Amino acid sequence: MAEITLEQARTIVRETIAKGREMGLKPLSVVVLDTGGHVKAFEREDGASPGRFGIAQGKAYGAVMLGMPGSAQMARAEQQAYFMAAVNGVFGGQVVPVPGGILVKDGDAVIGAVGVTGDTSDNDAEAGMAGIAAAGLDGAA
Amino acid sequence: MAEITLEQARTIVRETIAKGREMGLKPLSVVVLDTGGHVKAFEREDGASPGRFGIAQGKAYGAVMLGMPGSAQMARAEQQAYFMAAVNGVFGGQVVPVPGGILVKDGDAVIGAVGVTGDTSDNDAEAGMAGIAAAGLDGAA
Amino acid sequence: MAEITLEQARTIVRETIAKGREMGLKPLSVVVLDTGGHVKAFEREDGASPGRFGIAQGKAYGAVMLGMPGSAQMARAEQQAYFMAAVNGVFGGQVVPVPGGILVKDGDAVIGAVGVTGDTSDNDAEAGMAGIAAAGLDGAA
Amino acid sequence: MAEITLEQARTIVRETIAKGREMGLKPLSVVVLDTGGHVKAFEREDGASPGRFGIAQGKAYGAVMLGMPGSAQMARAEQQAYFMAAVNGVFGGQVVPVPGGILVKDGDAVIGAVGVTGDTSDNDAEAGMAGIAAAGLDGAA
Repeated sequence: MAEITLEQARTIVRETIAKGREMGLKPLSVVVLDTGGHVKAFEREDGASPGRFGIAQGKAYGAVMLGMPGSAQMARAEQQAYFMAAVNGVFGGQVVPVPGGILVKDGDAVIGAVGVTGDTSDNDAEAGMAGIAAAGLDGAA
Repeated sequence: MAEITLEQARTIVRETIAKGREMGLKPLSVVVLDTGGHVKAFEREDGASPGRFGIAQGKAYGAVMLGMPGSAQMARAEQQAYFMAAVNGVFGGQVVPVPGGILVKDGDAVIGAVGVTGDTSDNDAEAGMAGIAAAGLDGAA
Repeated sequence: MAEITLEQARTIVRETIAKGREMGLKPLSVVVLDTGGHVKAFEREDGASPGRFGIAQGKAYGAVMLGMPGSAQMARAEQQAYFMAAVNGVFGGQVVPVPGGILVKDGDAVIGAVGVTGDTSDNDAEAGMAGIAAAGLDGAA
Repeated sequence: MAEITLEQARTIVRETIAKGREMGLKPLSVVVLDTGGHVKAFEREDGASPGRFGIAQGKAYGAVMLGMPGSAQMARAEQQAYFMAAVNGVFGGQVVPVPGGILVKDGDAVIGAVGVTGDTSDNDAEAGMAGIAAAGLDGAA
């Protein structure tokens, strides 16, 4: 199984933040996790609130642990709220099931996940997808 | 009290996975718990997301601790979500109340539980029931 | 990065248990984790105490998360007990720093970890190394 | 109160890693926390074990929360192990009291903390001090 590299993760973090600036978004926080859900890289922009690491991580963590991007997690939460609540029990409350949690793929293989937070969930996801594309990889948001 | 054996657990795990392949399901993860809710055997197929142990365990754990299969837990969650939330408080968040959590019986006696995850909850349960039957035991899904 | 397969994990679990029978050890429990510390396969022999999943997992989890086999963790714990205590704070008490936690390598790359428990730590490690060798892989115990 | 900026944090992370390469150290993981102990930036080099985020964070967290660099925490742990154990009770097990946890100062004011892990604690601290110097700031290791 391929694994995201630090070079790819750096590019994703930087380019997601750059996209946020270009879109005029609020300050963003961006995490990249590996295929085991462990942190590879993270940056929080000046002016972002201090708890943003946990939110970014929670978006990406749910994506990689369940193999489901944030939009699919949100759909499941809206249909069956108790299921996503139970999932959070299993994962110690670390799953944030909304857009901005993005699977990173190299072809068909999941090689990691990105979590973006700071603006609306949809804007977060758009910025993250741009960062992933800038690294020459595919995202599933 | 009769207790599931490793030989039975191995058969259940293998035959559940084999059934999943035959049905064309997504990669499955299958756990067998004993009557105390403790792990006896587990396998996660290649390509399954990394968090599937916790989901499989949560389905089987709720079944054995409450003496209720996943379908009955789901019915209760849909009628009375706060009850299943409270149950999860009691059990440290380890209960996942959806189909795929199956009681294993030898005659009338519960001898363990199986948890299956990876495809739809109903397909998970169908594969698990086939695995239990292949071990010459009865399942309540 | 290479990742341990279910086929390899199955072989390791079976052959570790077979080695334990050949050595006349107490009932063993054997877990295989992937490179992210997530469970790939587990079996607990009949007669083993119910808490053995957690002990096996803790041996393997420390190995993979720190990149240090159980013997090296034990040496560190004996020199600097407060350091390993702090490590366990970081990892939620999941690290069991004694022999029987073994890194699995394919050439130079760590592809997972094995945890064995049930007999003395040294016997646990010897059985686990035999299981890894039977799968055509290298172990660092 | 002055607060470390993302620009400064980026420089520290990059230059600490560069120093590690120059010194021939094992792969490093480097975190920068703000004055509230919250993550500002992090990178983990390819080949570092997956649990290194937690270790890096624990070194920096203890430094900033107690206002004591890792070397002073280690001295206290060696004199009075139960005190550092109690500190970890207070802080949820997040403190790793060894060198590699460094206070970052701008003149007299603490503006954040750096945590470095991957090689020996002393080498980790040396690389981190070089990273802080490269950002035009002072470190207390």
